[in-house]
Amino acid sequence: MAGETVITVVGNLAADPELNFTTSGAGVANFTVISTQRMLDRESGEWRDKDKIALRCSLWRQPGENVAESLNRGDRVIVQGRLKQRSYETKDGERRTVVELDVEEIGPSLRWVTAKLTKVSRGGGGPAESPWASPPVPVGAGVGGEPPF
Amino acid sequence: MAGETVITVVGNLAADPELNFTTSGAGVANFTVISTQRMLDRESGEWRDKDKIALRCSLWRQPGENVAESLNRGDRVIVQGRLKQRSYETKDGERRTVVELDVEEIGPSLRWVTAKLTKVSRGGGGPAESPWASPPVPVGAGVGGEPPF
Amino acid sequence: MAGETVITVVGNLAADPELNFTTSGAGVANFTVISTQRMLDRESGEWRDKDKIALRCSLWRQPGENVAESLNRGDRVIVQGRLKQRSYETKDGERRTVVELDVEEIGPSLRWVTAKLTKVSRGGGGPAESPWASPPVPVGAGVGGEPPF
Amino acid sequence: MAGETVITVVGNLAADPELNFTTSGAGVANFTVISTQRMLDRESGEWRDKDKIALRCSLWRQPGENVAESLNRGDRVIVQGRLKQRSYETKDGERRTVVELDVEEIGPSLRWVTAKLTKVSRGGGGPAESPWASPPVPVGAGVGGEPPF
Repeated sequence: MAGETVITVVGNLAADPELNFTTSGAGVANFTVISTQRMLDRESGEWRDKDKIALRCSLWRQPGENVAESLNRGDRVIVQGRLKQRSYETKDGERRTVVELDVEEIGPSLRWVTAKLTKVSRGGGGPAESPWASPPVPVGAGVGGEPPF
Repeated sequence: MAGETVITVVGNLAADPELNFTTSGAGVANFTVISTQRMLDRESGEWRDKDKIALRCSLWRQPGENVAESLNRGDRVIVQGRLKQRSYETKDGERRTVVELDVEEIGPSLRWVTAKLTKVSRGGGGPAESPWASPPVPVGAGVGGEPPF
Repeated sequence: MAGETVITVVGNLAADPELNFTTSGAGVANFTVISTQRMLDRESGEWRDKDKIALRCSLWRQPGENVAESLNRGDRVIVQGRLKQRSYETKDGERRTVVELDVEEIGPSLRWVTAKLTKVSRGGGGPAESPWASPPVPVGAGVGGEPPF
Repeated sequence: MAGETVITVVGNLAADPELNFTTSGAGVANFTVISTQRMLDRESGEWRDKDKIALRCSLWRQPGENVAESLNRGDRVIVQGRLKQRSYETKDGERRTVVELDVEEIGPSLRWVTAKLTKVSRGGGGPAESPWASPPVPVGAGVGGEPPF
Protein backbone atom coordinates (compact mmCIF):
# COMPACT_ATOMS: atom_id res chain seq x y z
CA MET A 1 0.00 0.00 0.00
CA ALA A 2 1.01 3.58 -0.44
CA GLY A 3 -0.24 6.98 0.52
CA GLU A 4 -1.17 5.98 4.03
CA THR A 5 -1.08 8.52 6.81
CA VAL A 6 0.87 6.74 9.51
CA ILE A 7 1.00 8.49 12.86
CA THR A 8 2.38 7.79 16.32
CA VAL A 9 0.44 8.74 19.41
CA VAL A 10 1.58 8.62 23.02
CA GLY A 11 -1.15 8.70 25.63
CA ASN A 12 -3.19 6.86 28.21
CA LEU A 13 -5.98 4.34 27.83
CA ALA A 14 -9.33 5.94 28.62
CA ALA A 15 -10.73 2.57 29.73
CA ASP A 16 -9.87 -1.11 29.67
CA PRO A 17 -9.63 -2.38 26.07
CA GLU A 18 -12.73 -4.17 24.77
CA LEU A 19 -12.21 -7.47 23.02
CA ASN A 20 -14.76 -8.80 20.54
CA PHE A 21 -14.74 -11.80 18.25
CA THR A 22 -16.13 -12.39 14.79
CA THR A 23 -18.13 -15.54 14.06
CA SER A 24 -14.99 -16.92 12.42
CA GLY A 25 -13.14 -16.49 15.68
CA ALA A 26 -10.96 -13.49 14.86
CA GLY A 27 -10.53 -11.11 17.76
CA VAL A 28 -10.48 -7.35 17.60
CA ALA A 29 -9.47 -5.04 20.42
CA ASN A 30 -10.98 -1.57 20.58
CA PHE A 31 -9.71 1.12 22.88
CA THR A 32 -9.31 4.88 23.19
CA VAL A 33 -6.00 6.63 23.71
CA ILE A 34 -6.03 10.06 25.30
CA SER A 35 -3.03 12.20 24.51
CA THR A 36 -2.48 15.28 26.63
CA GLN A 37 -0.46 18.22 25.46
CA ARG A 38 1.35 20.01 28.23
CA MET A 39 2.61 23.55 28.27
CA LEU A 40 5.38 24.96 30.38
CA ASP A 41 4.06 27.78 32.53
CA ARG A 42 6.95 30.23 32.40
CA GLU A 43 6.00 31.95 35.63
CA SER A 44 5.57 28.94 37.85
CA GLY A 45 8.02 26.79 35.91
CA GLU A 46 5.51 23.95 36.01
CA TRP A 47 3.96 21.85 33.27
CA ARG A 48 0.22 22.30 32.84
CA ASP A 49 -2.20 20.15 30.94
CA LYS A 50 -3.53 21.85 27.84
CA ASP A 51 -5.32 20.35 24.86
CA LYS A 52 -6.30 16.70 24.79
CA ILE A 53 -7.09 14.42 21.92
CA ALA A 54 -8.97 11.16 22.26
CA LEU A 55 -8.36 8.69 19.46
CA ARG A 56 -10.36 5.53 18.92
CA CYS A 57 -8.12 2.57 18.02
CA SER A 58 -8.65 -0.94 16.74
CA LEU A 59 -6.28 -3.86 16.48
CA TRP A 60 -7.07 -7.27 15.02
CA ARG A 61 -6.23 -10.86 15.86
CA GLN A 62 -3.44 -11.99 18.20
CA PRO A 63 -1.92 -8.54 18.74
CA GLY A 64 -5.38 -7.31 19.70
CA GLU A 65 -5.79 -10.14 22.15
CA ASN A 66 -2.37 -9.38 23.61
CA VAL A 67 -3.45 -5.78 24.18
CA ALA A 68 -6.64 -6.85 25.91
CA GLU A 69 -4.68 -9.18 28.16
CA SER A 70 -1.85 -6.78 28.98
CA LEU A 71 -3.27 -3.28 29.24
CA ASN A 72 -5.73 -1.54 31.48
CA ARG A 73 -7.40 1.81 31.99
CA GLY A 74 -4.86 4.55 32.59
CA ASP A 75 -1.87 2.71 31.18
CA ARG A 76 0.46 4.87 29.14
CA VAL A 77 1.04 3.51 25.62
CA ILE A 78 2.86 4.25 22.38
CA VAL A 79 0.70 3.51 19.37
CA GLN A 80 1.57 3.58 15.71
CA GLY A 81 -1.10 3.15 13.09
CA ARG A 82 -2.83 4.40 10.01
CA LEU A 83 -5.22 7.30 10.34
CA LYS A 84 -8.61 6.38 9.02
CA GLN A 85 -11.88 8.20 8.51
CA ARG A 86 -15.17 6.45 8.66
CA SER A 87 -18.56 7.85 7.75
CA TYR A 88 -21.88 6.55 8.94
CA GLU A 89 -25.47 7.68 9.06
CA THR A 90 -27.31 8.36 12.29
CA LYS A 91 -30.88 7.21 12.90
CA ASP A 92 -31.95 10.69 11.90
CA GLY A 93 -30.33 10.24 8.54
CA GLU A 94 -27.48 12.56 9.40
CA ARG A 95 -24.03 11.87 8.06
CA ARG A 96 -21.20 11.74 10.58
CA THR A 97 -17.50 11.23 10.21
CA VAL A 98 -15.16 9.81 12.80
CA VAL A 99 -11.40 9.59 12.81
CA GLU A 100 -9.84 6.36 14.01
CA LEU A 101 -6.54 4.58 14.13
CA ASP A 102 -5.88 1.21 12.52
CA VAL A 103 -3.14 0.13 14.90
CA GLU A 104 0.00 -1.45 13.50
CA GLU A 105 2.13 -1.50 16.64
CA ILE A 106 1.37 -0.76 20.26
CA GLY A 107 3.29 -1.14 23.47
CA PRO A 108 3.13 0.03 27.07
CA SER A 109 5.42 3.01 27.68
CA LEU A 110 8.23 2.12 30.07
CA ARG A 111 8.40 5.64 31.44
CA TRP A 112 6.81 4.76 34.75
CA VAL A 113 6.56 0.98 34.70
CA THR A 114 8.61 -2.12 34.17
CA ALA A 115 7.23 -4.93 32.05
CA LYS A 116 7.57 -8.69 32.22
CA LEU A 117 7.09 -10.12 28.74
CA THR A 118 5.69 -13.52 27.83
CA LYS A 119 5.87 -14.84 24.30
CA VAL A 120 2.52 -15.93 22.91
CA SER A 121 2.67 -19.27 21.16
CA ARG A 122 0.88 -18.97 17.89
CA GLY A 123 -1.92 -21.51 17.67
CA GLY A 124 -2.08 -23.85 14.69
CA GLY A 125 -3.92 -22.63 11.65
CA GLY A 126 -3.94 -19.12 13.00
CA PRO A 127 -3.51 -15.93 11.06
CA ALA A 128 0.17 -16.27 10.45
CA GLU A 129 0.14 -13.57 7.85
CA SER A 130 0.80 -9.91 8.32
CA PRO A 131 -1.69 -7.79 10.27
CA TRP A 132 -1.67 -5.62 7.19
CA ALA A 133 -4.02 -8.12 5.59
CA SER A 134 -7.63 -7.02 5.30
CA PRO A 135 -9.44 -7.50 8.57
CA PRO A 136 -12.46 -9.79 8.67
CA VAL A 137 -15.82 -8.12 9.11
CA PRO A 138 -16.85 -8.04 12.77
CA VAL A 139 -20.17 -9.52 13.83
CA GLY A 140 -22.94 -7.01 13.37
CA ALA A 141 -20.68 -4.40 11.83
CA GLY A 142 -22.40 -1.95 9.60
CA VAL A 143 -25.85 -3.32 10.31
CA GLY A 144 -27.24 -0.49 12.34
CA GLY A 145 -26.88 3.23 11.90
CA GLU A 146 -24.32 3.42 14.64
CA PRO A 147 -20.69 2.43 14.34
CA PRO A 148 -20.01 -0.96 15.94
CA PHE A 149 -17.60 0.44 18.48
CA MET B 1 5.25 22.38 24.85
CA ALA B 2 5.32 18.64 25.20
CA GLY B 3 3.05 15.73 24.54
CA GLU B 4 1.86 17.03 21.22
CA THR B 5 0.78 14.62 18.53
CA VAL B 6 2.66 15.87 15.50
CA ILE B 7 1.75 14.22 12.21
CA THR B 8 2.67 14.59 8.57
CA VAL B 9 0.05 14.28 5.86
CA VAL B 10 0.56 14.17 2.10
CA GLY B 11 -2.48 14.91 0.00
CA ASN B 12 -4.35 17.30 -2.26
CA LEU B 13 -6.23 20.47 -1.47
CA ALA B 14 -9.98 19.89 -1.64
CA ALA B 15 -10.56 23.54 -2.57
CA ASP B 16 -8.72 26.84 -2.75
CA PRO B 17 -7.53 27.92 0.71
CA GLU B 18 -9.76 30.45 2.49
CA LEU B 19 -8.05 33.44 4.03
CA ASN B 20 -9.67 35.38 6.88
CA PHE B 21 -8.43 38.23 9.04
CA THR B 22 -8.98 39.13 12.68
CA THR B 23 -9.84 42.70 13.62
CA SER B 24 -6.23 43.11 14.67
CA GLY B 25 -5.15 42.22 11.16
CA ALA B 26 -3.80 38.72 11.69
CA GLY B 27 -4.57 36.37 8.83
CA VAL B 28 -5.53 32.74 9.08
CA ALA B 29 -5.70 30.31 6.20
CA ASN B 30 -8.10 27.38 6.38
CA PHE B 31 -8.03 24.49 3.96
CA THR B 32 -8.75 20.79 3.68
CA VAL B 33 -6.19 18.19 2.66
CA ILE B 34 -7.43 14.93 1.17
CA SER B 35 -5.04 12.03 1.48
CA THR B 36 -5.71 8.99 -0.63
CA GLN B 37 -4.41 5.58 0.26
CA ARG B 38 -3.64 3.42 -2.73
CA MET B 39 -3.45 -0.33 -2.92
CA LEU B 40 -1.55 -2.39 -5.42
CA ASP B 41 -3.91 -4.69 -7.27
CA ARG B 42 -1.81 -7.82 -7.55
CA GLU B 43 -3.71 -9.15 -10.54
CA SER B 44 -3.66 -6.09 -12.74
CA GLY B 45 -0.44 -4.72 -11.28
CA GLU B 46 -2.05 -1.31 -11.02
CA TRP B 47 -2.50 1.06 -8.10
CA ARG B 48 -6.09 1.64 -7.05
CA ASP B 49 -7.51 4.33 -4.81
CA LYS B 50 -8.70 2.99 -1.51
CA ASP B 51 -9.50 4.84 1.70
CA LYS B 52 -9.41 8.61 1.86
CA ILE B 53 -9.06 10.97 4.77
CA ALA B 54 -10.01 14.64 4.69
CA LEU B 55 -8.28 16.77 7.28
CA ARG B 56 -9.21 20.36 8.07
CA CYS B 57 -6.11 22.55 8.52
CA SER B 58 -5.43 26.04 9.79
CA LEU B 59 -2.34 28.20 9.58
CA TRP B 60 -1.90 31.67 11.05
CA ARG B 61 -0.25 34.90 9.99
CA GLN B 62 2.30 35.29 7.18
CA PRO B 63 2.71 31.56 6.50
CA GLY B 64 -1.08 31.33 6.16
CA GLU B 65 -1.10 34.23 3.73
CA ASN B 66 1.68 32.59 1.75
CA VAL B 67 -0.42 29.43 1.46
CA ALA B 68 -3.45 31.39 0.26
CA GLU B 69 -1.34 33.14 -2.35
CA SER B 70 0.55 30.06 -3.56
CA LEU B 71 -1.80 27.09 -3.49
CA ASN B 72 -4.98 26.15 -5.25
CA ARG B 73 -7.58 23.42 -5.38
CA GLY B 74 -6.03 20.09 -6.33
CA ASP B 75 -2.45 21.00 -5.49
CA ARG B 76 -0.49 18.23 -3.82
CA VAL B 77 1.01 19.29 -0.50
CA ILE B 78 3.08 18.00 2.41
CA VAL B 79 1.74 19.24 5.73
CA GLN B 80 3.17 18.86 9.19
CA GLY B 81 1.21 19.93 12.21
CA ARG B 82 -0.28 19.14 15.58
CA LEU B 83 -3.39 17.02 15.71
CA LYS B 84 -6.14 18.82 17.57
CA GLN B 85 -9.63 17.95 18.64
CA ARG B 86 -12.29 20.55 18.98
CA SER B 87 -15.73 20.14 20.47
CA TYR B 88 -18.71 22.33 19.79
CA GLU B 89 -22.43 22.26 20.26
CA THR B 90 -24.87 22.21 17.37
CA LYS B 91 -28.03 24.33 17.27
CA ASP B 92 -29.88 21.27 18.52
CA GLY B 93 -27.68 21.18 21.57
CA GLU B 94 -25.78 18.17 20.35
CA ARG B 95 -22.11 17.80 21.11
CA ARG B 96 -19.78 17.20 18.18
CA THR B 97 -16.07 16.63 17.94
CA VAL B 98 -13.90 17.42 14.98
CA VAL B 99 -10.28 16.58 14.36
CA GLU B 100 -8.12 19.28 12.84
CA LEU B 101 -4.52 20.09 12.13
CA ASP B 102 -2.68 23.11 13.52
CA VAL B 103 -0.20 23.46 10.70
CA GLU B 104 3.45 24.08 11.51
CA GLU B 105 4.93 23.62 8.06
CA ILE B 106 3.41 23.18 4.63
CA GLY B 107 4.79 23.08 1.14
CA PRO B 108 3.71 22.09 -2.35
CA SER B 109 4.95 18.62 -3.27
CA LEU B 110 7.46 18.76 -6.13
CA ARG B 111 6.41 15.35 -7.41
CA TRP B 112 4.60 16.72 -10.43
CA VAL B 113 5.42 20.41 -10.43
CA THR B 114 8.29 22.82 -10.34
CA ALA B 115 8.13 25.86 -8.09
CA LYS B 116 9.44 29.37 -8.41
CA LEU B 117 9.97 30.80 -4.94
CA THR B 118 9.72 34.44 -3.90
CA LYS B 119 10.85 35.58 -0.48
CA VAL B 120 8.24 37.51 1.45
CA SER B 121 9.60 40.66 3.04
CA ARG B 122 8.40 40.80 6.60
CA GLY B 123 6.44 43.97 7.20
CA GLY B 124 7.38 46.20 10.13
CA GLY B 125 5.78 45.44 13.45
CA GLY B 126 4.63 42.09 12.24
CA PRO B 127 4.57 38.89 14.23
CA ALA B 128 8.25 38.16 14.00
CA GLU B 129 8.03 35.56 16.68
CA SER B 130 7.53 31.86 16.23
CA PRO B 131 4.28 30.58 14.75
CA TRP B 132 4.18 28.38 17.84
CA ALA B 133 2.93 31.37 19.77
CA SER B 134 -0.73 31.35 20.72
CA PRO B 135 -2.87 32.40 17.79
CA PRO B 136 -5.08 35.46 18.12
CA VAL B 137 -8.80 34.79 18.36
CA PRO B 138 -10.46 35.09 14.95
CA VAL B 139 -13.34 37.47 14.43
CA GLY B 140 -16.57 35.88 15.55
CA ALA B 141 -14.90 32.68 16.67
CA GLY B 142 -16.82 30.75 19.24
CA VAL B 143 -19.73 33.11 19.12
CA GLY B 144 -22.24 30.91 17.37
CA GLY B 145 -22.93 27.23 17.80
CA GLU B 146 -21.03 26.37 14.68
CA PRO B 147 -17.26 26.28 14.30
CA PRO B 148 -15.93 29.33 12.50
CA PHE B 149 -14.44 27.33 9.67
CA MET C 1 6.61 -2.88 1.53
CA ALA C 2 6.40 -2.97 5.28
CA GLY C 3 8.60 -2.17 8.22
CA GLU C 4 10.02 0.98 6.73
CA THR C 5 11.13 3.79 8.97
CA VAL C 6 9.45 6.79 7.42
CA ILE C 7 10.45 10.16 8.84
CA THR C 8 9.73 13.81 8.14
CA VAL C 9 12.46 16.41 8.37
CA VAL C 10 12.14 20.18 8.15
CA GLY C 11 15.30 22.09 7.41
CA ASN C 12 17.36 24.04 4.95
CA LEU C 13 19.36 22.92 1.93
CA ALA C 14 23.07 22.98 2.67
CA ALA C 15 23.85 23.60 -0.99
CA ASP C 16 22.17 23.59 -4.38
CA PRO C 17 20.88 20.10 -5.24
CA GLU C 18 23.13 18.04 -7.52
CA LEU C 19 21.49 16.33 -10.46
CA ASN C 20 23.05 13.29 -12.08
CA PHE C 21 21.85 10.94 -14.79
CA THR C 22 22.30 7.23 -15.33
CA THR C 23 23.30 5.94 -18.73
CA SER C 24 19.66 5.00 -19.26
CA GLY C 25 18.69 8.62 -18.75
CA ALA C 26 17.14 8.45 -15.30
CA GLY C 27 17.91 11.46 -13.15
CA VAL C 28 18.72 11.47 -9.46
CA ALA C 29 18.90 14.54 -7.26
CA ASN C 30 21.16 14.49 -4.23
CA PHE C 31 21.07 17.12 -1.54
CA THR C 32 21.64 17.67 2.16
CA VAL C 33 19.02 19.01 4.53
CA ILE C 34 20.18 20.70 7.72
CA SER C 35 17.65 20.71 10.50
CA THR C 36 18.29 23.04 13.41
CA GLN C 37 16.80 22.49 16.81
CA ARG C 38 16.07 25.67 18.66
CA MET C 39 15.69 26.18 22.38
CA LEU C 40 13.84 28.93 24.12
CA ASP C 41 16.17 30.86 26.40
CA ARG C 42 13.94 31.52 29.39
CA GLU C 43 15.93 34.51 30.55
CA SER C 44 16.13 36.44 27.32
CA GLY C 45 12.90 35.02 25.92
CA GLU C 46 14.66 34.40 22.63
CA TRP C 47 15.09 31.28 20.53
CA ARG C 48 18.64 30.01 20.22
CA ASP C 49 20.05 27.51 17.80
CA LYS C 50 21.04 24.27 19.44
CA ASP C 51 21.76 20.89 17.91
CA LYS C 52 21.84 20.42 14.15
CA ILE C 53 21.45 17.35 12.03
CA ALA C 54 22.56 17.10 8.42
CA LEU C 55 20.81 14.42 6.41
CA ARG C 56 21.87 13.31 2.95
CA CYS C 57 18.86 12.83 0.66
CA SER C 58 18.26 11.31 -2.75
CA LEU C 59 15.27 11.48 -5.07
CA TRP C 60 14.92 9.76 -8.41
CA ARG C 61 13.49 10.62 -11.81
CA GLN C 62 11.10 13.48 -12.54
CA PRO C 63 10.54 14.50 -8.90
CA GLY C 64 14.31 14.69 -8.52
CA GLU C 65 14.59 16.86 -11.61
CA ASN C 66 11.83 19.10 -10.25
CA VAL C 67 13.81 19.54 -7.04
CA ALA C 68 16.97 20.45 -8.94
CA GLU C 69 15.07 23.00 -10.99
CA SER C 70 13.11 24.53 -8.09
CA LEU C 71 15.32 24.60 -5.03
CA ASN C 72 18.55 26.29 -4.08
CA ARG C 73 21.01 26.55 -1.24
CA GLY C 74 19.37 27.82 1.92
CA ASP C 75 15.79 27.05 0.91
CA ARG C 76 13.65 25.70 3.71
CA VAL C 77 12.03 22.37 2.83
CA ILE C 78 9.77 19.69 4.25
CA VAL C 79 10.98 16.21 3.34
CA GLN C 80 9.39 12.87 3.93
CA GLY C 81 11.25 9.69 3.19
CA ARG C 82 12.53 6.33 4.30
CA LEU C 83 15.54 6.22 6.57
CA LYS C 84 18.27 4.11 5.05
CA GLN C 85 21.65 2.95 6.16
CA ARG C 86 24.41 2.30 3.70
CA SER C 87 27.75 0.69 4.38
CA TYR C 88 30.84 1.07 2.31
CA GLU C 89 34.53 0.40 2.59
CA THR C 90 37.11 3.15 2.56
CA LYS C 91 40.35 2.91 0.59
CA ASP C 92 42.01 1.81 3.81
CA GLY C 93 39.62 -1.10 4.04
CA GLU C 94 37.67 0.45 6.85
CA ARG C 95 33.95 -0.12 7.05
CA ARG C 96 31.75 2.97 7.35
CA THR C 97 28.05 3.42 7.72
CA VAL C 98 26.07 6.43 6.63
CA VAL C 99 22.45 7.27 7.24
CA GLU C 100 20.49 8.68 4.34
CA LEU C 101 16.97 9.50 3.31
CA ASP C 102 15.22 7.95 0.32
CA VAL C 103 12.90 10.84 -0.37
CA GLU C 104 9.24 10.15 -1.09
CA GLU C 105 7.90 13.69 -0.98
CA ILE C 106 9.56 17.06 -0.75
CA GLY C 107 8.35 20.60 -0.99
CA PRO C 108 9.56 24.12 -0.23
CA SER C 109 8.19 25.37 3.10
CA LEU C 110 5.83 28.30 2.62
CA ARG C 111 6.81 29.82 5.95
CA TRP C 112 8.81 32.65 4.44
CA VAL C 113 8.16 32.37 0.72
CA THR C 114 5.38 32.21 -1.80
CA ALA C 115 5.58 29.71 -4.64
CA LYS C 116 4.43 29.79 -8.23
CA LEU C 117 3.81 26.23 -9.41
CA THR C 118 4.16 24.90 -12.93
CA LYS C 119 2.91 21.45 -13.84
CA VAL C 120 5.52 19.27 -15.49
CA SER C 121 4.22 17.45 -18.53
CA ARG C 122 5.28 13.87 -18.33
CA GLY C 123 7.29 12.96 -21.35
CA GLY C 124 6.35 9.87 -23.39
CA GLY C 125 7.76 6.56 -22.28
CA GLY C 126 8.80 8.05 -18.98
CA PRO C 127 8.71 6.40 -15.62
CA ALA C 128 4.97 6.58 -15.10
CA GLU C 129 5.14 4.14 -12.27
CA SER C 130 5.47 4.90 -8.63
CA PRO C 131 8.72 6.32 -7.26
CA TRP C 132 8.57 3.40 -4.86
CA ALA C 133 9.89 1.21 -7.66
CA SER C 134 13.51 0.17 -7.37
CA PRO C 135 15.82 2.92 -8.52
CA PRO C 136 18.16 2.29 -11.41
CA VAL C 137 21.83 2.05 -10.56
CA PRO C 138 23.60 5.38 -11.06
CA VAL C 139 26.61 5.59 -13.30
CA GLY C 140 29.71 4.65 -11.42
CA ALA C 141 27.88 3.77 -8.26
CA GLY C 142 29.63 1.36 -6.02
CA VAL C 143 32.71 1.23 -8.19
CA GLY C 144 35.10 3.07 -5.96
CA GLY C 145 35.58 2.89 -2.24
CA GLU C 146 33.73 6.12 -1.71
CA PRO C 147 29.97 6.55 -1.83
CA PRO C 148 28.84 8.11 -5.12
CA PHE C 149 27.22 11.10 -3.42
CA MET D 1 12.15 23.38 22.12
CA ALA D 2 11.32 23.58 18.47
CA GLY D 3 12.67 22.27 15.22
CA GLU D 4 13.39 18.84 16.54
CA THR D 5 13.29 15.85 14.22
CA VAL D 6 11.13 13.39 16.11
CA ILE D 7 10.92 9.92 14.62
CA THR D 8 9.35 6.60 15.52
CA VAL D 9 11.16 3.36 14.89
CA VAL D 10 9.87 -0.19 15.25
CA GLY D 11 12.45 -2.91 15.50
CA ASN D 12 14.29 -5.43 17.62
CA LEU D 13 16.99 -4.97 20.23
CA ALA D 14 20.38 -6.00 18.87
CA ALA D 15 21.56 -6.90 22.38
CA ASP D 16 20.56 -6.52 26.00
CA PRO D 17 20.42 -2.84 26.99
CA GLU D 18 23.50 -1.53 28.81
CA LEU D 19 22.91 0.49 31.93
CA ASN D 20 25.49 2.96 33.19
CA PHE D 21 25.47 5.49 36.02
CA THR D 22 26.98 8.91 36.40
CA THR D 23 28.84 9.80 39.57
CA SER D 24 25.73 11.69 40.67
CA GLY D 25 23.74 8.47 40.39
CA ALA D 26 21.76 9.15 37.26
CA GLY D 27 21.30 6.09 35.06
CA VAL D 28 21.44 5.97 31.30
CA ALA D 29 20.42 3.01 29.17
CA ASN D 30 22.05 2.52 25.81
CA PHE D 31 20.80 0.06 23.24
CA THR D 32 20.57 -0.53 19.50
CA VAL D 33 17.31 -1.05 17.64
CA ILE D 34 17.41 -2.91 14.34
CA SER D 35 14.54 -2.17 12.02
CA THR D 36 14.01 -4.50 9.09
CA GLN D 37 12.18 -3.47 6.00
CA ARG D 38 10.31 -6.28 4.34
CA MET D 39 9.21 -6.55 0.75
CA LEU D 40 6.40 -8.64 -0.62
CA ASP D 41 7.70 -11.06 -3.21
CA ARG D 42 4.94 -10.97 -5.78
CA GLU D 43 5.79 -14.36 -7.21
CA SER D 44 5.95 -16.37 -4.02
CA GLY D 45 3.51 -14.15 -2.14
CA GLU D 46 5.90 -14.14 0.82
CA TRP D 47 7.51 -11.32 2.75
CA ARG D 48 11.28 -11.10 2.46
CA ASP D 49 13.72 -9.16 4.56
CA LYS D 50 15.28 -6.27 2.69
CA ASP D 51 17.15 -3.27 4.03
CA LYS D 52 17.98 -2.94 7.70
CA ILE D 53 18.81 0.07 9.80
CA ALA D 54 20.54 -0.09 13.17
CA LEU D 55 19.96 2.91 15.37
CA ARG D 56 21.84 3.62 18.58
CA CYS D 57 19.51 4.85 21.34
CA SER D 58 19.95 6.39 24.77
CA LEU D 59 17.46 6.98 27.55
CA TRP D 60 18.15 8.68 30.87
CA ARG D 61 17.11 8.16 34.47
CA GLN D 62 14.20 6.05 35.66
CA PRO D 63 12.79 5.32 32.19
CA GLY D 64 16.24 4.09 31.18
CA GLU D 65 16.43 1.87 34.23
CA ASN D 66 12.98 0.50 33.40
CA VAL D 67 14.18 -0.40 29.93
CA ALA D 68 17.24 -2.17 31.28
CA GLU D 69 15.10 -4.15 33.68
CA SER D 70 12.33 -5.02 31.20
CA LEU D 71 13.88 -5.63 27.81
CA ASN D 72 16.31 -8.12 26.38
CA ARG D 73 18.10 -8.96 23.17
CA GLY D 74 15.65 -9.68 20.36
CA ASP D 75 12.65 -7.98 21.95
CA ARG D 76 10.51 -6.02 19.52
CA VAL D 77 10.05 -2.39 20.55
CA ILE D 78 8.42 0.85 19.49
CA VAL D 79 10.68 3.82 20.10
CA GLN D 80 9.99 7.50 19.70
CA GLY D 81 12.75 10.03 20.04
CA ARG D 82 14.72 12.91 18.66
CA LEU D 83 17.19 12.25 15.91
CA LYS D 84 20.61 13.48 16.89
CA GLN D 85 23.95 13.71 15.20
CA ARG D 86 27.16 13.52 17.11
CA SER D 87 30.65 14.16 15.83
CA TYR D 88 33.82 12.91 17.38
CA GLU D 89 37.44 12.50 16.45
CA THR D 90 39.13 9.13 16.12
CA LYS D 91 42.58 8.40 17.51
CA ASP D 92 43.92 9.06 14.03
CA GLY D 93 42.43 12.53 14.14
CA GLU D 94 39.69 11.65 11.73
CA ARG D 95 36.30 13.24 12.15
CA ARG D 96 33.30 10.90 12.31
CA THR D 97 29.61 11.52 12.58
CA VAL D 98 27.09 9.15 14.06
CA VAL D 99 23.34 9.33 14.10
CA GLU D 100 21.58 8.46 17.34
CA LEU D 101 18.19 8.63 18.96
CA ASP D 102 17.47 10.54 22.17
CA VAL D 103 14.59 8.37 23.31
CA GLU D 104 11.44 10.02 24.63
CA GLU D 105 9.18 7.00 24.82
CA ILE D 106 9.78 3.30 24.39
CA GLY D 107 7.70 0.23 24.92
CA PRO D 108 7.74 -3.46 24.03
CA SER D 109 5.55 -4.21 21.01
CA LEU D 110 2.60 -6.40 21.95
CA ARG D 111 2.52 -8.03 18.53
CA TRP D 112 3.92 -11.33 19.75
CA VAL D 113 4.00 -10.99 23.52
CA THR D 114 1.83 -10.13 26.47
CA ALA D 115 3.19 -7.85 29.19
CA LYS D 116 2.69 -7.70 32.90
CA LEU D 117 3.27 -4.15 34.10
CA THR D 118 4.58 -3.04 37.49
CA LYS D 119 4.50 0.58 38.52
CA VAL D 120 7.83 1.96 39.65
CA SER D 121 7.61 3.99 42.82
CA ARG D 122 9.49 7.21 42.36
CA GLY D 123 12.16 7.61 44.96
CA GLY D 124 12.20 10.80 47.04
CA GLY D 125 14.05 13.77 45.66
CA GLY D 126 14.39 12.12 42.28
CA PRO D 127 14.25 13.83 38.93
CA ALA D 128 10.52 14.48 38.93
CA GLU D 129 10.84 16.92 36.11
CA SER D 130 10.41 16.18 32.46
CA PRO D 131 12.86 13.84 30.74
CA TRP D 132 13.24 16.67 28.25
CA ALA D 133 15.55 18.32 30.74
CA SER D 134 19.22 18.33 29.84
CA PRO D 135 20.81 15.02 30.66
CA PRO D 136 23.69 14.92 33.11
CA VAL D 137 27.08 14.20 31.66
CA PRO D 138 27.98 10.51 31.93
CA VAL D 139 31.17 9.47 33.65
CA GLY D 140 34.05 9.65 31.27
CA ALA D 141 32.00 11.03 28.42
CA GLY D 142 33.93 12.90 25.84
CA VAL D 143 37.23 12.22 27.49
CA GLY D 144 38.71 9.83 24.98
CA GLY D 145 38.61 9.89 21.23
CA GLU D 146 35.88 7.28 21.14
CA PRO D 147 32.20 7.89 21.83
CA PRO D 148 31.26 6.70 25.32
CA PHE D 149 28.71 4.21 24.04
